[in-house]
Amino acid sequence: MRLSRREFSKLGAMGLAAQVLPSASSEAQDANRKVGYCVIGLGRIANHFIGGVQGSSTSQITGLVSGHRDKAEKFAARLGVPKSSIYSYEDMDRMRDNKSIDAVYVALPNSMHAEYTIRSAKAGKHVLCEKPMSTSVSDAEAMIAACKAANVKLMIAYRLHYEPTNLRAIELIRQGALGKVQVIESANGFYENLGEWRLNKAMSGGGPMLDVGIYSLNATRYLTGEEPESFTASVSTIDHDGRFDTVEENTTWTTKFPSGALASCCTTYGANMRSYYRVYGSKGWLEVGSFGYEGLRLQANYSSGGRGTPATVLDEPNTEPDPKQFTRQADHFTECILQNKTPKTPGEEGLRDMQYMQQIYKAAGVVAL
Amino acid sequence: MRLSRREFSKLGAMGLAAQVLPSASSEAQDANRKVGYCVIGLGRIANHFIGGVQGSSTSQITGLVSGHRDKAEKFAARLGVPKSSIYSYEDMDRMRDNKSIDAVYVALPNSMHAEYTIRSAKAGKHVLCEKPMSTSVSDAEAMIAACKAANVKLMIAYRLHYEPTNLRAIELIRQGALGKVQVIESANGFYENLGEWRLNKAMSGGGPMLDVGIYSLNATRYLTGEEPESFTASVSTIDHDGRFDTVEENTTWTTKFPSGALASCCTTYGANMRSYYRVYGSKGWLEVGSFGYEGLRLQANYSSGGRGTPATVLDEPNTEPDPKQFTRQADHFTECILQNKTPKTPGEEGLRDMQYMQQIYKAAGVVAL
Repeated sequence: MRLSRREFSKLGAMGLAAQVLPSASSEAQDANRKVGYCVIGLGRIANHFIGGVQGSSTSQITGLVSGHRDKAEKFAARLGVPKSSIYSYEDMDRMRDNKSIDAVYVALPNSMHAEYTIRSAKAGKHVLCEKPMSTSVSDAEAMIAACKAANVKLMIAYRLHYEPTNLRAIELIRQGALGKVQVIESANGFYENLGEWRLNKAMSGGGPMLDVGIYSLNATRYLTGEEPESFTASVSTIDHDGRFDTVEENTTWTTKFPSGALASCCTTYGANMRSYYRVYGSKGWLEVGSFGYEGLRLQANYSSGGRGTPATVLDEPNTEPDPKQFTRQADHFTECILQNKTPKTPGEEGLRDMQYMQQIYKAAGVVAL
Repeated sequence: MRLSRREFSKLGAMGLAAQVLPSASSEAQDANRKVGYCVIGLGRIANHFIGGVQGSSTSQITGLVSGHRDKAEKFAARLGVPKSSIYSYEDMDRMRDNKSIDAVYVALPNSMHAEYTIRSAKAGKHVLCEKPMSTSVSDAEAMIAACKAANVKLMIAYRLHYEPTNLRAIELIRQGALGKVQVIESANGFYENLGEWRLNKAMSGGGPMLDVGIYSLNATRYLTGEEPESFTASVSTIDHDGRFDTVEENTTWTTKFPSGALASCCTTYGANMRSYYRVYGSKGWLEVGSFGYEGLRLQANYSSGGRGTPATVLDEPNTEPDPKQFTRQADHFTECILQNKTPKTPGEEGLRDMQYMQQIYKAAGVVAL
């Protein structure tokens, strides 16, 4: 919707301008300026994101939120962020008045996603939130509602939706290169150590399903282009060494899609598991052998011309180094902000995975999320 | 139990000799002679078996059962089997009087396993029966009962229980090289063509689960050394091209073992699927990349000395050509016959898989087997 200046003024007088404005501040209208991000939480993944934004021509880091002022000041000095744009968790709501901050990147433990997304929205900032979106379906719904009420955009950081190897896999499937998708296998998991926040359900919301299994779950959805019809699942805990007092250790599940395509997936915190997906279609298969930040590689072998047609064999490594995926992700959200578009992975995408993970737990006899 | 000649005569007078005799005919007592096998059904797998027996120093082919006399006579000429030892399906019960036949190898479509196992048992022959053991749990039970009643041995042809690469995988797991087994992934499937007997439920008993999925099911049992506690499963049929009018196309399932180890498995007749298993333990992983007749290969990577210990990396191809697996399998059954031992994979092993497959179908909402 485009409004004339006069129409807009009228809406302003009616108190409705905010509802048609594409973004929180009218500065976002200037498609040539850089969008400023405030990073909330300066942990490991925040470093990847910051590196990604540094490689972007449309985004920049303009604010930091941390519980450690010293640490934040070091980041600020390196990134050229003024000290006045460093906030604590307590006073971050003040960023409402900071015009250099258009959006926040929520890189906190899962249980804090909802609170900081909602507070950021109330401060008038667009929100890019890490996955899993939250630790409960109701929190995810509240996050969407808060961003809608504040008229800010909400994107969940599903970086692989913007990553060329995954986009190539999706393209091959949509083109019918593999024929009809029959079965997808996927795994993602790692050995987690005692003391890590992921093993504390109050912070993580659950076991490996939320942190890494979500990659397999989400991949089966974008690969098929379908929404799951049903799930079956098993969960277990084998090690009683203090690590799994509050979250489960292993989960295996099956997904059935409306087309009949099935997925067979597993995740764990008890073993270093290979991360990959492999799609079997009636005419051949493809595999992407990592959900990582770099080193992705698509391999495929199919005869889409029918029986007897020589096989097409693909082996396409993605040589883009980390943090290029984060640049692509930030660029997308920035574009959405500047051009008033809905992100490819909005809050609703995160909510769906929360609902599906709830169903997977339920299928395994566990009440969660 | 050893009996003196006098004690044995007494039992014979009481009609009980058959119950203490280790085998159907007293000739089997001679540990130096070759055990004679009659092959029932001269299809693809029978050729592998015959090749395997030809490579054995303790077994030989001494009879044939076929519906095609011409075909059987060609086989007989090649194998040195007298024409008098060729039977039709109708008259095969006459082999009771053929002393050169100690055992049969049942290589028929699944639905015929029960009838020909039971008839062979009644003819006083030991039975080596292909897997799946039958097309119903009750048939499997009847087969075991018939062999017991006739005092003949029954072995199900789980050839991988006798195959070095699989034995090596089991050994590594039992030694604790991988630590505690957390999750096993396994797949096995292929694109099946219209008109094949496997797609006719009356002959096959069901879809890919019975023919190839059974490898994954059985492997997760011998790898963990445990019996499944529960299953979850999904089945689907995507292609409505006449192939799947009576059997399902795809199955994915999860298995939970008492230790907490989980398995994530899939099978299909709708796609050429890689056949493999991969075991993830707390200290590393191993993979065997085929359930085939040859070309098996064990790969592994583990640090069983604990964290920081250099990883042990294994890459051990099995270079034994087909039909060596069949030689090993025949040798085992022959040894059991000659030495009056219970096979490693007796009827009860086949029955268990039938019961588990029934549970997998039930978990998917299908009444079968």
